[in-house]
Amino acid sequence: MEIFRAMEEYGTQQLVFCYDRTSGLRAIVAVHDTTLGPALGGCRMWPYRSEEEAVIDALRLSQGMTWKNAAMGLPLGGGKTVVLGDPAKDKSEALWRALGAFIDRMGGVYITAEDVGTTPEDMEQVAQSTRYVAGLNLRSGDPSPATAYGVYQGMRAALEVAFGEPSVAGRHVVVQGLGHVGLALTERLIREGAAVTVTDIYPDRLRPHVDRLGLGVIGPDDVYDADADVFAPCALGGVLNADTIRRLRVRAVCGAANNQLATAEDAERLRQRGIFYAPDFVVNGGGVIHVAEEFGIGGFSENRAMMKIARIYDQVLAVADLAAREDITTHEAALRLAERRLRDLGHLLRLEVRSRRAWT
Amino acid sequence: MEIFRAMEEYGTQQLVFCYDRTSGLRAIVAVHDTTLGPALGGCRMWPYRSEEEAVIDALRLSQGMTWKNAAMGLPLGGGKTVVLGDPAKDKSEALWRALGAFIDRMGGVYITAEDVGTTPEDMEQVAQSTRYVAGLNLRSGDPSPATAYGVYQGMRAALEVAFGEPSVAGRHVVVQGLGHVGLALTERLIREGAAVTVTDIYPDRLRPHVDRLGLGVIGPDDVYDADADVFAPCALGGVLNADTIRRLRVRAVCGAANNQLATAEDAERLRQRGIFYAPDFVVNGGGVIHVAEEFGIGGFSENRAMMKIARIYDQVLAVADLAAREDITTHEAALRLAERRLRDLGHLLRLEVRSRRAWT
Repeated sequence: MEIFRAMEEYGTQQLVFCYDRTSGLRAIVAVHDTTLGPALGGCRMWPYRSEEEAVIDALRLSQGMTWKNAAMGLPLGGGKTVVLGDPAKDKSEALWRALGAFIDRMGGVYITAEDVGTTPEDMEQVAQSTRYVAGLNLRSGDPSPATAYGVYQGMRAALEVAFGEPSVAGRHVVVQGLGHVGLALTERLIREGAAVTVTDIYPDRLRPHVDRLGLGVIGPDDVYDADADVFAPCALGGVLNADTIRRLRVRAVCGAANNQLATAEDAERLRQRGIFYAPDFVVNGGGVIHVAEEFGIGGFSENRAMMKIARIYDQVLAVADLAAREDITTHEAALRLAERRLRDLGHLLRLEVRSRRAWT
Repeated sequence: MEIFRAMEEYGTQQLVFCYDRTSGLRAIVAVHDTTLGPALGGCRMWPYRSEEEAVIDALRLSQGMTWKNAAMGLPLGGGKTVVLGDPAKDKSEALWRALGAFIDRMGGVYITAEDVGTTPEDMEQVAQSTRYVAGLNLRSGDPSPATAYGVYQGMRAALEVAFGEPSVAGRHVVVQGLGHVGLALTERLIREGAAVTVTDIYPDRLRPHVDRLGLGVIGPDDVYDADADVFAPCALGGVLNADTIRRLRVRAVCGAANNQLATAEDAERLRQRGIFYAPDFVVNGGGVIHVAEEFGIGGFSENRAMMKIARIYDQVLAVADLAAREDITTHEAALRLAERRLRDLGHLLRLEVRSRRAWT
């Protein structure tokens, strides 16, 4: 593959191939865009079948982080690290410390965090070699409750658009995937008086919670046919496609999963069916807001983080407003709002350097 | 091509792809090895026919800089930048300032300088965005006379090995290529009493100097057949190959060109013919010693630089000694000395960081 052609396609500034002979580390750090500040994005470890697959994943995920961080109003650009390897077999302290050394020598242009295939313990080891790690246990810790709170606020906005009333009380929500975020979201919905039906490809995940919380259960293949008010994808990406959208019997989609749309056209498909889609990278931004608070003035504050996350409600309403006014999909509207911010601030040439200093 | 496989082959730590949409910059920064200190190596601009060609060039040249900097005893690792583009058409202030910004965000892990296809003026523009540029006019300036002085000292050692007497007076040297370094070397040899025969594929380069200095002239194709004491390649790489080595009628080879050996076996061919080969990356290290003095205690000192460059005489003798003792080629002996230094210092885990601080 042609690296530069792919970078051009995704609009990526920098792609750093890191190799450490001793530990066997092979990692790619993608710095997609630093217009708004240092590039923040997690570190994924995955047994990629090819180098090309890893490069594309890094480019795609880092672009998503630029959109998310811009949409959240954060002083952060978008980045991502992918480590080529099997999380079950290839981890070692030497590997994480080597990765930390590579991140450290980027001097704060990129800040990493936990992601798919990595754990808080791995990030503690990365932090032995660099301060540019966010989300450590001793600081902001697990971002899942924060992400779930943001999705909840986004869902209130989605209900406001769909029904003219934001309350979840009495509404029926279908949650796909009862991982950390899906479970925290479900607990909050129940607490606020909603009826929740859940599904998960691992039935073990459902068992401890169904009776305790009074949940409905539906099969993984039937989830798209459920008769409900809101569908909340909190597991895999790409679940909104031509087949599933045709089957949906809800008024709104609002969940935590990344890259829910299989293609950009699927946003249009949802619109045509009259289903309000709360863009994933807007509603699942609570985690990154939470982590970014570590670098706020005076250090991390849980209260301040939660206050900022609550604004996702307003952000989804602004997206809905722009989409209605311009007759475009909500996905397109959210992108335009993010891009507008990038454009409005792009002329501040020294911003990157100034932000970077503030982070060190 | 597989990037990680190529990095593994060359032992390269880091390969940074830099893309700037506005200026059209496409550059690859290779950080080969930072065991001894920040990676220093020039910035080459070239209309590569493919991305793969550019990657291989960056990997190969940065590896050569590690060897050279290690052989010179410098507190510097090896790196190189290649800019994809035509030096005659694709340069702009925006392009160089974008490159400077990318180098700056590497935080001093890599330091650039003028190289093939770039000029001191280009580097002045790079320096608008970063302090990690060496060899600027206002500091150490043109390194060619320093490089030539180092080759001269290496040649004295080569004559000591070949004839038991280091003086160039009365010796006959054939200089291939009358560029900046070749000319400075020729002038010094004449001043010290040697007879010099020159060749260049551009006859215009010879014309102003032949009568002035009293030089002999030989055709570019006949240079390998010249009956002389020393052959000094100061132009292209790869000029020492099975064909040319068979034809050589000299007792020693010592010149400024990079990568003079077409393959590692050609060092053995020279040995079998009884021709002493002064390894290129040892004898042409004067330029990098000169530039490194910019970062010495108290700032640049021409005198101190020249004193250090004079030690290339001793370094070539040390190479000759090891080669004789171990019954290996001088190329292999020089590599072993460089690698020994890398190995002996490789356990100083924090050296890189400390060196980096000293450079800022």
